[in-house]
Amino acid sequence: MEAPFPAFPDVLYTDSLKQDSNPWIDRLRSGDPRALARAISTVENRAEGWSELLKALFPYTGKARVIGLTGPPGAGKSTLVDQLAKHYRKEKQTVGIIAVDPTSPYTGGAILGDRIRMQDHYSDPGIFIRSMATRGSLGGLARATADAATVLDASGRDLVMIETVGVGQDEVDIVRLADVTIVILVPGMGDDVQTIKAGIMEIADIFVINKSDREGAERVEREIRAMQSLAMRGDRWTPPIVKTVASEGVGTKELARAIAEYEAFLKKENLAFKKNVENWQLRLVEMLRDAMLEKARKQIDGGSLERYAAEIAEHKRDPYSLVEEIVRGAERT
Amino acid sequence: MEAPFPAFPDVLYTDSLKQDSNPWIDRLRSGDPRALARAISTVENRAEGWSELLKALFPYTGKARVIGLTGPPGAGKSTLVDQLAKHYRKEKQTVGIIAVDPTSPYTGGAILGDRIRMQDHYSDPGIFIRSMATRGSLGGLARATADAATVLDASGRDLVMIETVGVGQDEVDIVRLADVTIVILVPGMGDDVQTIKAGIMEIADIFVINKSDREGAERVEREIRAMQSLAMRGDRWTPPIVKTVASEGVGTKELARAIAEYEAFLKKENLAFKKNVENWQLRLVEMLRDAMLEKARKQIDGGSLERYAAEIAEHKRDPYSLVEEIVRGAERT
Repeated sequence: MEAPFPAFPDVLYTDSLKQDSNPWIDRLRSGDPRALARAISTVENRAEGWSELLKALFPYTGKARVIGLTGPPGAGKSTLVDQLAKHYRKEKQTVGIIAVDPTSPYTGGAILGDRIRMQDHYSDPGIFIRSMATRGSLGGLARATADAATVLDASGRDLVMIETVGVGQDEVDIVRLADVTIVILVPGMGDDVQTIKAGIMEIADIFVINKSDREGAERVEREIRAMQSLAMRGDRWTPPIVKTVASEGVGTKELARAIAEYEAFLKKENLAFKKNVENWQLRLVEMLRDAMLEKARKQIDGGSLERYAAEIAEHKRDPYSLVEEIVRGAERT
Repeated sequence: MEAPFPAFPDVLYTDSLKQDSNPWIDRLRSGDPRALARAISTVENRAEGWSELLKALFPYTGKARVIGLTGPPGAGKSTLVDQLAKHYRKEKQTVGIIAVDPTSPYTGGAILGDRIRMQDHYSDPGIFIRSMATRGSLGGLARATADAATVLDASGRDLVMIETVGVGQDEVDIVRLADVTIVILVPGMGDDVQTIKAGIMEIADIFVINKSDREGAERVEREIRAMQSLAMRGDRWTPPIVKTVASEGVGTKELARAIAEYEAFLKKENLAFKKNVENWQLRLVEMLRDAMLEKARKQIDGGSLERYAAEIAEHKRDPYSLVEEIVRGAERT
């Protein structure tokens, strides 16, 4: 690939972000996909200047609608997201997509999918797609996703879609920051669908039954309805069930309408702000945890961590007292 | 139920644990299931004295064999674990079982399953079963499981089995602390089994194909073999595949033999200690994170957390600077 634009040195962030006018922020806000990709990498990897970048971008955030989509593997999430993206593009809205795959803790498989999907929309700078795979076990993926959404929001995208595979705690953490959460199910998942559904009834604002031309779509619908009658929501919204065949574009309009209706409901009931405050409470605690952990890690470098672990494994030291000592050490810094 | 034993006041831990002889520790070490249940609740809920309790128990740990079992919902894990427990009981080994269900973030459904399964083994104090459901989003479940395993280990159980549903990052974190990790699959999971398997090839020391009398068992076996030829392990162990029909007790002996063989391998290659040190490195970082988070939370009480979140939602304050300020504040304490 050609490189028609100058390198994008991370260090420039730190130097220039505090100035009132910043060419990188300007490029980002102009919608330049390469500036976007670079900025997301910076915050995702906690590269130099990440914190200054987020601080500088924060005033521009809060404008994008954030839609979260989750469901089991094979539910057709990507196809549905692509259909939604095309729909909103027709309405001249700019779209950012974050595709998260937390199911594979050791592989970086997301990258390939990213490239394949990118090609489809390559000619349209109004759609930006970014994939994220698992980054270790310290809840880093939810944090990275939130920060990437912040960058996309600040860059002026009208709509940010976050799609994630699976329905465990990781996915709940990831989609939690969305204004609208869509849970995608498919017919023919067998009895295990019960187990999967138990955890997500509470987070779904809208249900989608994709591949609804398959046998069993009515059964899934009945099951959702049955579980809905038991579920408790904090508001007066009854999540609608939208049937789609994403591969043929069937139901996309209906889904977009359901999204708009829920957004109108949030506005009418004045719930959007409340939801936002609740999300920030959770995010603040997570950000604090990360910051404190980083501080704690500085207390024990890699070498002494291994030595401590060996001493514990040999029963020469108990880990509970050790952690107390280290935390006390941090206090004295 | 009658209450033939005196109440078990948590506060006694704190007062008495530092003495050389402690009646609670003695009761726990005698295998008393009620003392065990109480002690696990104390560390699980971080009730008063939890830290002193773990410190006092630590010298007694490191003796139990810890076996982790994971697999998708409906794979028959509980039945298999029960069969293994019965097998080891015949060999006069005492067993502790921790059944973890991280798939349901909002319900406490684990409790019921606990009671149902408890009844089966009620007459045998040599089997202790404890269920755990998700405790919020801060990685608390892996921590709580590790601490419960520590209590069971210290109480003198010969064997601790940790079973968890699902194959995401949560489950990897939970089974990681086991000496032996068993991944359970079943025939007829459809194509999605590929997606599920991708993340667990690396953590399985032994594969079980349960319900292996069903059609498709050979196909699952071929798939595992095919993926094994691609997977990289840090040691020279090739995870065996054991076929079981747990509901009929078929294959339990073979599985126990496979477990013993892997344990012998670990011993021969001197890998058990290395594995232990690696686990403690990860656990130390997690314990540090939790301790630092607690410290951070003390910096911001509930009221100011909500106020901060509202200010951020109103864009009166940026969260990144706020967190830096709070962390600096913690430094000055």
